[in-house]
Amino acid sequence: MLMIPGPTEIDERVIRAMARQMIDHRSDEFRALMKSVVEKSRKIFEANSSDIYILTASGTGGVEAAASNLTQPGDKVLILSAGLFAERMAEAFAAYGANVVKHPLENGQGPNPVAVKKLLETHPDTAIVGFPFNETSTGIISRDVKEIGRICREHGALLVVDAVTAVGGVRVPVDEYNIDVCVAGTQKCLATPPGLALVTVSKRAWEKIEQKKLRPPYFDLVKYRHFMERWETPFTPAVTLFWAFDEALNIIFEYGYERWLARHAAGAAGLYAGLRTYGLEFYAGPGFESPIVAAMHIPPGLTDTAIRETMKKKYGILISGGLAHYKGKMFRIANIGLITRDKVVNTIFALGKTLKSLGMDVDVSAAVENTERELDRNWPS
Amino acid sequence: MLMIPGPTEIDERVIRAMARQMIDHRSDEFRALMKSVVEKSRKIFEANSSDIYILTASGTGGVEAAASNLTQPGDKVLILSAGLFAERMAEAFAAYGANVVKHPLENGQGPNPVAVKKLLETHPDTAIVGFPFNETSTGIISRDVKEIGRICREHGALLVVDAVTAVGGVRVPVDEYNIDVCVAGTQKCLATPPGLALVTVSKRAWEKIEQKKLRPPYFDLVKYRHFMERWETPFTPAVTLFWAFDEALNIIFEYGYERWLARHAAGAAGLYAGLRTYGLEFYAGPGFESPIVAAMHIPPGLTDTAIRETMKKKYGILISGGLAHYKGKMFRIANIGLITRDKVVNTIFALGKTLKSLGMDVDVSAAVENTERELDRNWPS
Repeated sequence: MLMIPGPTEIDERVIRAMARQMIDHRSDEFRALMKSVVEKSRKIFEANSSDIYILTASGTGGVEAAASNLTQPGDKVLILSAGLFAERMAEAFAAYGANVVKHPLENGQGPNPVAVKKLLETHPDTAIVGFPFNETSTGIISRDVKEIGRICREHGALLVVDAVTAVGGVRVPVDEYNIDVCVAGTQKCLATPPGLALVTVSKRAWEKIEQKKLRPPYFDLVKYRHFMERWETPFTPAVTLFWAFDEALNIIFEYGYERWLARHAAGAAGLYAGLRTYGLEFYAGPGFESPIVAAMHIPPGLTDTAIRETMKKKYGILISGGLAHYKGKMFRIANIGLITRDKVVNTIFALGKTLKSLGMDVDVSAAVENTERELDRNWPS
Repeated sequence: MLMIPGPTEIDERVIRAMARQMIDHRSDEFRALMKSVVEKSRKIFEANSSDIYILTASGTGGVEAAASNLTQPGDKVLILSAGLFAERMAEAFAAYGANVVKHPLENGQGPNPVAVKKLLETHPDTAIVGFPFNETSTGIISRDVKEIGRICREHGALLVVDAVTAVGGVRVPVDEYNIDVCVAGTQKCLATPPGLALVTVSKRAWEKIEQKKLRPPYFDLVKYRHFMERWETPFTPAVTLFWAFDEALNIIFEYGYERWLARHAAGAAGLYAGLRTYGLEFYAGPGFESPIVAAMHIPPGLTDTAIRETMKKKYGILISGGLAHYKGKMFRIANIGLITRDKVVNTIFALGKTLKSLGMDVDVSAAVENTERELDRNWPS
């Protein structure tokens, strides 16, 4: 059982959707598929005025598409960082010649509108503000994206958001929040096999993109826009993944997108209730605990490896460790995609048994009970 | 039936290989898959000293990986062009600041060693020479890659080859030919669904890559090398396509790689015999006719659309038209991947009937007979 922050488990229907003979990507059949996928994605992003593009690349590729299309050399880019994925974003902009100003966020906090306003006053020449909607590496969610979007627009800065793990798990309404370029992965809360990235582009972002004369061809969004006029991609797309994604979106809309989001919220409520009962400490400060992935300090005396190996060997549940300089210092449990009550309950149960077997004094029954109570209270009907 | 130059038809076993529940890409299971795929790919490229990387991207992305990793701003890059894919290569290098010198090849010719030698004497500061092994847009194969590789090495220039449609159809021994960076697609002669690109890197190429301080993160080959030490990719790979590719390689090696190449050669012999019987004119000059894709002028009085639509509607066979400025001026028939005798024969038969129905005086029986004779003579036992 995968309880890692992607790739996630996939519905049988999605698996079957890929089991087809190949088609020409310059055919009416592919164009219909593209149209279907884009129109459904539009609902996910609540995008009326923004465009949506689908790249054959991982989420990191999508973030690079944002950076490489928007950045003029020397552009001041403000990155609000609470972990590794913000650092990657900074790296992508720097690779295309941006003058990156990194603003480390206070321990456990997401981006703060008051701080952003001050930063933009200190750096009035900021061209772009960027941060992850959900910082997967530290389990911190950005709560105030709408307000930050308003502030960015007020200051004439574009807002770029890495929503790779957020989209499908929480609302990411790009127009309403003034997100100029938003990047999503399909292999996270949208429960599709990995290999595609979604990129939304606002009208303001287009103005900046069009000013660039030279864009790296593979991620050139102007080319994408041109081919999208006939529902095609400039280069050969990963056709099987388009089939998979289309079916994953069918499943989401049959279930109801609001309910899909509510299910993620309910899963998070149950998960956190159990984790708190074990007395685990989160990297996220109060109110910033990510509903997508919980990141916990390793309890004193225990090791990352012991926890994860026990979970895997004894209970068949895969959870994640820390990334980069958090390696060995944290463990992470995701609540992504095909979340079910029993997945959450089994994870809390297995984690309790694991912690206990490693010498920690935890009350497994109480944790399971608290988890179940929260699931019952929150699970969408 | 797909007779287009990619994506190609896929074996049922390859389709089934993807029909699995998702796994963690940081697991022993994925590492074993990666190792398997890389070691088999090594045989395809006859690569002993070169490294092989697998990118989640189309072939164009692979070419961009070559350009973005190798190019220092101002580097002189000599591109030998016989069509659109050479132009794309030039565009990729230019996007990363290269001083691109385009050398248009004489009509219908592949790169010529004598001309390359002269060009390198005229431009002794050439850092990189690049061209497509198989120019898919005009049906021209490069015959003299080995000799050109020797000349490039003699002159201290790196050789970059776009072998996206060539690999798996003809021998592309990267070490023997001194190809420093070779890019292959898996969705062509390797008969895998699209979405992965292969990139080989020679020791000499590494020296140049390491000189660069800033590489675009998504295609950063130094990162790829680092993660390959433990058989992983830096970012989430398209796992389902790795399964597909692994099974496609199993099929190729069970059949025998030499035989697989011989089958492509036999298919080409049969295809060209039929096309010649119809008196069609190739873009490729004598000796440069690509065994991977045949590109023909539209016979006088006929149109591209009429030929392709009739082939599709009456015979269920998809062939391709021209690209960019060849649009409406040519048609192309591919001989890629899962080539069988009956595919070739049916295509020649259907094409003859099509040309006849459009008013051309052709001898369908003679063409089919000539095709079959060549197939019989060349098909591997």
